[in-house]
Amino acid sequence: MNTVYFDNAATTKIRTEVLNEMLPFLGRNYGNASSLYSIGRVSKHAIETARKQVASLINCNSNEIYFTSCGTESDNTAIKGIAFANKVKGNHIITSKIEHPAVLESCKFLEQQGFEVTYVGVDSGGFINLDELENSIRPSTVLISIMFANNEIGTIQPVKDIAKIAHEHNIIFHTDAVQAVGNCLVDVQDMGIDLLSLSGHKIHAPKGVGALYVRNGVDFVPFMNGGHQEKSKRAGTENVAEIVGLGKACEIARNNLSSHMSFLLKIRNYYLDRIDKFFSGKYRINGALENRLPR
Amino acid sequence: MNTVYFDNAATTKIRTEVLNEMLPFLGRNYGNASSLYSIGRVSKHAIETARKQVASLINCNSNEIYFTSCGTESDNTAIKGIAFANKVKGNHIITSKIEHPAVLESCKFLEQQGFEVTYVGVDSGGFINLDELENSIRPSTVLISIMFANNEIGTIQPVKDIAKIAHEHNIIFHTDAVQAVGNCLVDVQDMGIDLLSLSGHKIHAPKGVGALYVRNGVDFVPFMNGGHQEKSKRAGTENVAEIVGLGKACEIARNNLSSHMSFLLKIRNYYLDRIDKFFSGKYRINGALENRLPR
Repeated sequence: MNTVYFDNAATTKIRTEVLNEMLPFLGRNYGNASSLYSIGRVSKHAIETARKQVASLINCNSNEIYFTSCGTESDNTAIKGIAFANKVKGNHIITSKIEHPAVLESCKFLEQQGFEVTYVGVDSGGFINLDELENSIRPSTVLISIMFANNEIGTIQPVKDIAKIAHEHNIIFHTDAVQAVGNCLVDVQDMGIDLLSLSGHKIHAPKGVGALYVRNGVDFVPFMNGGHQEKSKRAGTENVAEIVGLGKACEIARNNLSSHMSFLLKIRNYYLDRIDKFFSGKYRINGALENRLPR
Repeated sequence: MNTVYFDNAATTKIRTEVLNEMLPFLGRNYGNASSLYSIGRVSKHAIETARKQVASLINCNSNEIYFTSCGTESDNTAIKGIAFANKVKGNHIITSKIEHPAVLESCKFLEQQGFEVTYVGVDSGGFINLDELENSIRPSTVLISIMFANNEIGTIQPVKDIAKIAHEHNIIFHTDAVQAVGNCLVDVQDMGIDLLSLSGHKIHAPKGVGALYVRNGVDFVPFMNGGHQEKSKRAGTENVAEIVGLGKACEIARNNLSSHMSFLLKIRNYYLDRIDKFFSGKYRINGALENRLPR
């Protein structure tokens, strides 16, 4: 029996090219990237190459990329880091009801620490209402966190419009783009995104590595406290092999983006056609079909 | 020129046997351990095997092991998790001045959130004073965190005595054992340890994986908020391959412990003899030579 894997939104297989880039760092290149001697420098150099590859995929500067252990850690770092860094300014956060648990639970943690959170809803298509978002803004609002594409139904939020509203009110905008990066165009400069979370294992890099983009000039309190790795913004000995894998996967994702999007759209439409042929009138698709992954 | 690597306290090379265990999970076994279908269950099963291997090395139950992304995350989880879980009871923590930055910076973060921290000193041998420790205890003390073995000079603290003092005052005891596990006997039951941090890359497992032991019955607030992985105590898609590697490395460390300790002692003594022969009177060893790694 042939198995067809239908759950690439949950996790993906590591690409052979990605694993091949990683293997030397699981073998002879085992240096600690914070060490000054030669095998340490090999690791450091590899990390900086990966940083450029990740930055290139989302169109930011490489010094705006911080490596983490997963998308969940990126979300924790963004939300708690901005909240704690701005608590003198205000204690209010706006997010949506359909965020990933990494965002929702981080917000709940902050509520226990005295922060206030507004959870905006979505319409039947799965989209937030921009008027409701803007009406939720208070003088104490310091962060808006709205996901780029939903992890269950794939609907893509109007992030550029959200960023515009946030900035008109001098509020920082974070987006959890774990499901979007590599599957649709994500351009943090064009879209006005201040912080963005991404994950390796959603784009054929290994599980256990992610990244957080933070626009230069936006300060955040470190989530993972300890040593001076990642410009003292994310402590812990660097997971060199997996960071190298994430970099390579981002490079491939960037080079293949348009063909990958066409491929996804083709198999999605094929699948929906078959569903419609065999189960006509007996199925329902959650959310809108426009502005949805794949696009 | 032959290179001799002298920095295994900073990081170690992955053992071939460890990498061989990992490779299937970097290849065909790419299932998400939280999925219910077959390749997900393969990952789940592998994680539970690793959990038993880690537990066996430190003599605890496997359901007392939580996988993390590194020793630093284990320390952050232990210290912040216990502090937040007990803040109704008290806001005081005792640690030492010679802890790893993962502990010290986690404590500094908590100080900014209204907690109070006492940093006990060490004598010229590198050891904390048990009387000073006990005299630092307040009615509001909820946690004592003292490292097992120091990451720079290797001195081993009297953890069993510290645990006894902590428990006499109904205080939880955490130890950062990142440098000790695999290099000396660590028995959480015999020593009365409530929480213990360990790291993969210090014991020939990969960088990017660690574990936290938490005694059953000791509650802690999750540090990494999000999904329901690790009994809802550590969110984020499980890093299956690296967890498998950590498990195998712990199994090997347990089997080889006495021969490894003898080997370390032999090369340490050889090194000190040579230093003494060539630089007699011109060198100084920081800290005591007894109660020190290797032992």
